[in-house]
Amino acid sequence: MAEVGIIMGSQSDWPTMRAAAEILDELGVAYETKIVSAHRTPDRLWDYGKTAVARGLKVIIAGAGGAAHLPGMMASKTRVPVIGVPVQTRALSGVDSLYSIVQMPKGYPVATMAIGGAANAGLMAAAILAVSDAALAERLDAWREALSASIPEEPKDE
Amino acid sequence: MAEVGIIMGSQSDWPTMRAAAEILDELGVAYETKIVSAHRTPDRLWDYGKTAVARGLKVIIAGAGGAAHLPGMMASKTRVPVIGVPVQTRALSGVDSLYSIVQMPKGYPVATMAIGGAANAGLMAAAILAVSDAALAERLDAWREALSASIPEEPKDE
Amino acid sequence: MAEVGIIMGSQSDWPTMRAAAEILDELGVAYETKIVSAHRTPDRLWDYGKTAVARGLKVIIAGAGGAAHLPGMMASKTRVPVIGVPVQTRALSGVDSLYSIVQMPKGYPVATMAIGGAANAGLMAAAILAVSDAALAERLDAWREALSASIPEEPKDE
Amino acid sequence: MAEVGIIMGSQSDWPTMRAAAEILDELGVAYETKIVSAHRTPDRLWDYGKTAVARGLKVIIAGAGGAAHLPGMMASKTRVPVIGVPVQTRALSGVDSLYSIVQMPKGYPVATMAIGGAANAGLMAAAILAVSDAALAERLDAWREALSASIPEEPKDE
Amino acid sequence: MAEVGIIMGSQSDWPTMRAAAEILDELGVAYETKIVSAHRTPDRLWDYGKTAVARGLKVIIAGAGGAAHLPGMMASKTRVPVIGVPVQTRALSGVDSLYSIVQMPKGYPVATMAIGGAANAGLMAAAILAVSDAALAERLDAWREALSASIPEEPKDE
Amino acid sequence: MAEVGIIMGSQSDWPTMRAAAEILDELGVAYETKIVSAHRTPDRLWDYGKTAVARGLKVIIAGAGGAAHLPGMMASKTRVPVIGVPVQTRALSGVDSLYSIVQMPKGYPVATMAIGGAANAGLMAAAILAVSDAALAERLDAWREALSASIPEEPKDE
Amino acid sequence: MAEVGIIMGSQSDWPTMRAAAEILDELGVAYETKIVSAHRTPDRLWDYGKTAVARGLKVIIAGAGGAAHLPGMMASKTRVPVIGVPVQTRALSGVDSLYSIVQMPKGYPVATMAIGGAANAGLMAAAILAVSDAALAERLDAWREALSASIPEEPKDE
Amino acid sequence: MAEVGIIMGSQSDWPTMRAAAEILDELGVAYETKIVSAHRTPDRLWDYGKTAVARGLKVIIAGAGGAAHLPGMMASKTRVPVIGVPVQTRALSGVDSLYSIVQMPKGYPVATMAIGGAANAGLMAAAILAVSDAALAERLDAWREALSASIPEEPKDE
Repeated sequence: MAEVGIIMGSQSDWPTMRAAAEILDELGVAYETKIVSAHRTPDRLWDYGKTAVARGLKVIIAGAGGAAHLPGMMASKTRVPVIGVPVQTRALSGVDSLYSIVQMPKGYPVATMAIGGAANAGLMAAAILAVSDAALAERLDAWREALSASIPEEPKDE
Repeated sequence: MAEVGIIMGSQSDWPTMRAAAEILDELGVAYETKIVSAHRTPDRLWDYGKTAVARGLKVIIAGAGGAAHLPGMMASKTRVPVIGVPVQTRALSGVDSLYSIVQMPKGYPVATMAIGGAANAGLMAAAILAVSDAALAERLDAWREALSASIPEEPKDE
Repeated sequence: MAEVGIIMGSQSDWPTMRAAAEILDELGVAYETKIVSAHRTPDRLWDYGKTAVARGLKVIIAGAGGAAHLPGMMASKTRVPVIGVPVQTRALSGVDSLYSIVQMPKGYPVATMAIGGAANAGLMAAAILAVSDAALAERLDAWREALSASIPEEPKDE
Repeated sequence: MAEVGIIMGSQSDWPTMRAAAEILDELGVAYETKIVSAHRTPDRLWDYGKTAVARGLKVIIAGAGGAAHLPGMMASKTRVPVIGVPVQTRALSGVDSLYSIVQMPKGYPVATMAIGGAANAGLMAAAILAVSDAALAERLDAWREALSASIPEEPKDE
Repeated sequence: MAEVGIIMGSQSDWPTMRAAAEILDELGVAYETKIVSAHRTPDRLWDYGKTAVARGLKVIIAGAGGAAHLPGMMASKTRVPVIGVPVQTRALSGVDSLYSIVQMPKGYPVATMAIGGAANAGLMAAAILAVSDAALAERLDAWREALSASIPEEPKDE
Repeated sequence: MAEVGIIMGSQSDWPTMRAAAEILDELGVAYETKIVSAHRTPDRLWDYGKTAVARGLKVIIAGAGGAAHLPGMMASKTRVPVIGVPVQTRALSGVDSLYSIVQMPKGYPVATMAIGGAANAGLMAAAILAVSDAALAERLDAWREALSASIPEEPKDE
Repeated sequence: MAEVGIIMGSQSDWPTMRAAAEILDELGVAYETKIVSAHRTPDRLWDYGKTAVARGLKVIIAGAGGAAHLPGMMASKTRVPVIGVPVQTRALSGVDSLYSIVQMPKGYPVATMAIGGAANAGLMAAAILAVSDAALAERLDAWREALSASIPEEPKDE
Repeated sequence: MAEVGIIMGSQSDWPTMRAAAEILDELGVAYETKIVSAHRTPDRLWDYGKTAVARGLKVIIAGAGGAAHLPGMMASKTRVPVIGVPVQTRALSGVDSLYSIVQMPKGYPVATMAIGGAANAGLMAAAILAVSDAALAERLDAWREALSASIPEEPKDE
């Protein structure tokens, strides 16, 4: 059963959001993926949010660009922690996405990642689950140690 | 019966949004006012949008600040034209509100006004209604002429 | 007879503005297109604004880039609602266009769309006309439902 | 025993960060507060991060302003989820704090809140703990319902 | 007879624009002042531009804020050099005014000053006139020398 | 003898600045071109500024990018009007150039053009010279009329 | 004899720049202060730069606001390391100062501090001198340790 | 023995940072290069900072992008002067890097260069060393003179 839901506003966000899925694969976390558009499929958003707890979702990762309402609206519909990924945009480079996601009013936080930072969204989801999942915590520690160990000492000409 | 709905995300938006109501008063347009928070009262937003046409609303003016999702979400729920007013914010001066309101994806336009531009939202609502209301069109023409006529020729020391 | 006028500051805006025309075609709304440069053809702008009502125009869509004065100047010349489309620019990505169009003073609102958001300008024009055109309202509702229905459930690798 | 650590770069961040503590008080979550400056007390940061898991911390809330390195450096030292609060600054209004906190590289996410959004940091911490704490989940649901219920229907002149 | 026309979009710009008049007084340059709103009094703008050469104006200083169309529209109506002064605004600090004034398309330059830089507009007007007015050139040289001579060597506590 | 000096900070600015020379060629205005780097050849800048009046220069066009000090420093060394052209830059798109050129302190105005707006710099130089050169004024009027006449009525697919 | 020169564009920069002097006093470093305006007293700038080495200056701290040319021009006139302090400005909050100071072309670096960061300019000057002054290095180490030791463990309500 | 340490957050910064090494080669300054990631190898950062003085490093050049914590954290660990190079980033063009590096709090200055300004970092390092190295000072003077001498008088079409 999926513990993490990865949702996004449109198919065009998938090349960005795929990185979240890949991290969860690496860490052995079960997830589902779905296109949920705040504006085009608001009822799908409503249903997703209303059933999230009952369906066993523990974390939701939501990516969107421009007037990126999906993460914030999802945060309004469920107490499941929502991680927001601002997708880079053509004219404003994702500053519009970032402001729309991070500047949430009191009551409805969205855990915002860097512009395009879907891999980190996967890691944050895992860190949240690891609070109560000792085996995952160990895998996450190992992942982090491997990352640190992979850094060479010297830069190299390419 | 109200032709225009003036909605806003919170009581704190009213000092800004009142200017829209005042313009509609001047122009003799019937309106209603309501607090509709996209995040705190999403079901109220849903109902408002779903019943807008049936209730006879012809234009909706929506003001919000920060991650200002109200205008865009309302635009997703009804085909009634939505005019968005970005409310000035403390840290980002309303640039966050502006980007969240104006950068809507294809399908769900929000007619965005200047930051804090609620009076113009009232005028835009009137202009939209005037398309099919000749008497209002005359009152709007008169309002515009009076504004032009009020401009003195010479600047004055105060 | 055209109900919507699509105007733009130069030929180079047409690749952006064409999307407005395409939407109006899809929705069966009659329109005209014209190059009207606020700076290079100010008299053309004057005439266009002054005759808009008499010629039966009900909505004007105006696209411009940089110090994008066309939408605002048109709003000063006619009470016909003006929808502004900020065209993306080379150095400032259209932030200059956006600020020049949206930050209008009291009296002369421009219904501003996203940077490059010409398709939405077409939809907003249709929504305004639909206030008093029940057949168009139905076509607009159908267009919106089709858009919503077109969203797949699952993102796909390409 | 504290489940949440609220840390901040200096005493001057406390008026902002206090809102996180107040939310945790309302929700009955045990927390500790500490000044940990990434630059002035880097060894304190090191120790805090290295002992966080062993001391039973499940979430860390870190607030900082300007070149706000505290949240990101803490995220590098522990797998405990770090929630970052960009504190508003004098010259750049907290845009500097926001960029320094949110734009983390792959491997070390910081769950970034709005500029000055410490109350939401408290709520996000609670939501994370609620994933595995059913009683807290109920209190959080109740808090959210009370917030929604507190919104009046009509704006009021003051 | 006035050689310089100082125009501004509204009475509220006068506290800024007065500095241009003061400089011209200091330098003995004849000028006139007038409120010319691009949006509220477009015909006044038209007339002003069309008669500028015939009336003997040699330079026009135009101040405006927000979607500041006055300088650019005046530049479109007359070949008299137009100096633009972006007036500081409440939400966007005059960045909107600056972009609207400076980002003019090919054909219609506006000699843009700093935000709020009306004194420099007066000096630039004088420098332009001094190209063909030797006596003014001498007065301008003296003004510049006096400014340089007024700078103390040491900063002082106040 | 050159009436206009076109100077620039480096060879890499020439592809931008050439447009100013081309306009002056079209209008029959004599000019010279020179590389004058504020930082690399400050003495050349000093000499250029100090001899500008004596050498008969009536207008100086200065283009620079980044911390673009050339226009402002030239304005400090001569009363000849200086027109500044912010050259587009790689990281900041010329916003750095624009701010460095336009935000001059009282006493030393730079007539700032759009980012990359060298053609307009040529036109502004011509407009300044036309104040006291009736023949050039006529040529400038003709140039402006030709530009207006060149605008087609209808946009065309390409 | 002064080892550090603290210069600034105008008297109005002194309230900011005084913090640099205070740090140097605390660390026992000899310094001088002087108003050197790049635009109003360019010859003073020239002389200061040309004689800096001969007069024994080892570091120059230069503060300026707006089109802040002083630090960069000084860097062009002397090989003595120049530390730049962007002074906060009214309209643009010092972003103009920052860009004008930091975005220097190859050949003439300015060691740029935070907006308003004059105290850090004093510390950087001391750190540079400490490279070859063991006694000062010890005093700087002590200063840094005292700062670290001054940080309390717990935030306090005021 | 290396007098300058060139460090960077990752291999991907090397194409930018190499320019610092090249300048030091030209000036005959001994340096070392190392990848030191603030987040991935914090202990390496700690060790590097703690041993810098003892190992004879006199200047450290640190390049990083995004939430660029490396220069500031290094400045917190050693009194050796740290020169920061903001590396250009994809979404925010290096404005994130710039703000994260330059906006340091009192006590821990970073001598910040332009975005991508690694060559200038090498020159600043040399200027700092030249304070107490007369031979290097001569080489630096010669380098600067050669740069000035290399500037042609006339721009050339390419």
